[in-house]
Amino acid sequence: MKVVLGSGAQHMRDEFLAKAKDYGKEVIEVEIKTFPDGEKYVRILGDGEEAIVVQSTFKPQDEHLIELLLLGDALREKGFKHLKAVVPYLAYSRQDRVTKDGESISVRAILRALSLYYDEFYVFDLHNPKTLEFFPKNAVNLSPANAVAKYFKEKLGEGVVLGPDKGALERAKAVAEILGLEFSHFEKKRISPTEVQMTPVDIDVRGKNVLIVDDIISTGGTMIKAANLLREMGAKKVFVAVTHGVFAEGAIERVSKAVDELAVTNSIPTPVSKISLVEEILKL
Amino acid sequence: MKVVLGSGAQHMRDEFLAKAKDYGKEVIEVEIKTFPDGEKYVRILGDGEEAIVVQSTFKPQDEHLIELLLLGDALREKGFKHLKAVVPYLAYSRQDRVTKDGESISVRAILRALSLYYDEFYVFDLHNPKTLEFFPKNAVNLSPANAVAKYFKEKLGEGVVLGPDKGALERAKAVAEILGLEFSHFEKKRISPTEVQMTPVDIDVRGKNVLIVDDIISTGGTMIKAANLLREMGAKKVFVAVTHGVFAEGAIERVSKAVDELAVTNSIPTPVSKISLVEEILKL
Repeated sequence: MKVVLGSGAQHMRDEFLAKAKDYGKEVIEVEIKTFPDGEKYVRILGDGEEAIVVQSTFKPQDEHLIELLLLGDALREKGFKHLKAVVPYLAYSRQDRVTKDGESISVRAILRALSLYYDEFYVFDLHNPKTLEFFPKNAVNLSPANAVAKYFKEKLGEGVVLGPDKGALERAKAVAEILGLEFSHFEKKRISPTEVQMTPVDIDVRGKNVLIVDDIISTGGTMIKAANLLREMGAKKVFVAVTHGVFAEGAIERVSKAVDELAVTNSIPTPVSKISLVEEILKL
Repeated sequence: MKVVLGSGAQHMRDEFLAKAKDYGKEVIEVEIKTFPDGEKYVRILGDGEEAIVVQSTFKPQDEHLIELLLLGDALREKGFKHLKAVVPYLAYSRQDRVTKDGESISVRAILRALSLYYDEFYVFDLHNPKTLEFFPKNAVNLSPANAVAKYFKEKLGEGVVLGPDKGALERAKAVAEILGLEFSHFEKKRISPTEVQMTPVDIDVRGKNVLIVDDIISTGGTMIKAANLLREMGAKKVFVAVTHGVFAEGAIERVSKAVDELAVTNSIPTPVSKISLVEEILKL
């Protein structure tokens, strides 16, 4: 199995090169450049039958998406028979339904386009796993739980794992079960467009380390609120692990100040992308 | 028939609003915005059965292409039954074949993706008209000749129309026939990667105005060479009309200095996009 890394996976390149062989895979080179007029150029410098194409679609997301189509086209032209697209962070995954009449279901358009070239589709921690139904072939929502658990195992010790809301309970549970720890979630109530009321969880955190896990972080407001509440409740250290670091301006600093450690996966390269998904991808 | 204008057609908006009714069409509003994380949002604010979606795909071309997919998705969701995509300038149209092993046929990927949402595809003056075969439904390569002829009719008078090379002969012919003028082309020979030798045309240009027409202009080097040659041959005024103004830095100024007038169509908005394609689009 060959591995092809797009522009949205170059930050994982060194680790892929170091570990691919352990998983029976080989990274093949690809030339990617941008012409002066802004058009992308891709060229596959290797051969094979099957390939995993890794391309996370963070900003500039549209460029990464088009490049993923071009890589698919180049690989088919090269004679590759079976292609897996691995998109650690899937752009447009929050535009998964029509909220106001006239809107697009943007993620549907993206998945349909990718299905023209890719036989299988893999993504991490999708906002709404039902979204995968828009990919008309085999599609899988991968969990980052192994990677998160591995990263925080030592630091957390005999702590607890929490979701910041009920929707994140399954995420908390997945990490907690790997580590053999307790888990629960906050009750979150939106009281205005800008303010959220959080109710303490039904779990004793006094003197314990706590890991809050979620799929996505933007302003980090919820995380800061949860962390402050946990301190009031007597928690020892508060850690935050989030899959996709779609940080708003200044959010990394604000959250980092409020917690003992903030870590996100490398689905998006950020200064706190300390949890690597590379081995999870190499298992595919 | 409804007309929807994407971000790549906003520079044509006023003219569409002014003239749509004359062609039995109606422009419907669309909300287009970009979220702070860079994702596009589109929303169709009108209803109908059939629509023409106008979206030229100049820089940022990948954003315009993804937006065109999203507009298609939103229109289908709205219940539109038949969609025509009009892409005055088609990005990636020069990547229409594999020159070096391992390359993508990028324009194929683009046209296949658009065919997921659009029943018909229209483009102006494609670099290689055979490219349309990659769109698996009805696809048409429109000529800007009417618009070019209309713009230069008065200025050119009893002049001649020339292509800068043999490949542009058909373009010169199309404009010349509308105006009832003579036409021909230069013989162009590439003598090094940076230099081109041009041979005077087999036509008498002494005392005549000359219009040179081509599909695309980038550095404008060929046009400047042709213009200088025509002056040596005794031409009166030299005009240049190009369909797609993909100008390199400083090219507009360099070409404008070498000729009496430079005009391109509004397939790409530039300071010299004086030839409008709007009426040609409204005829569809």
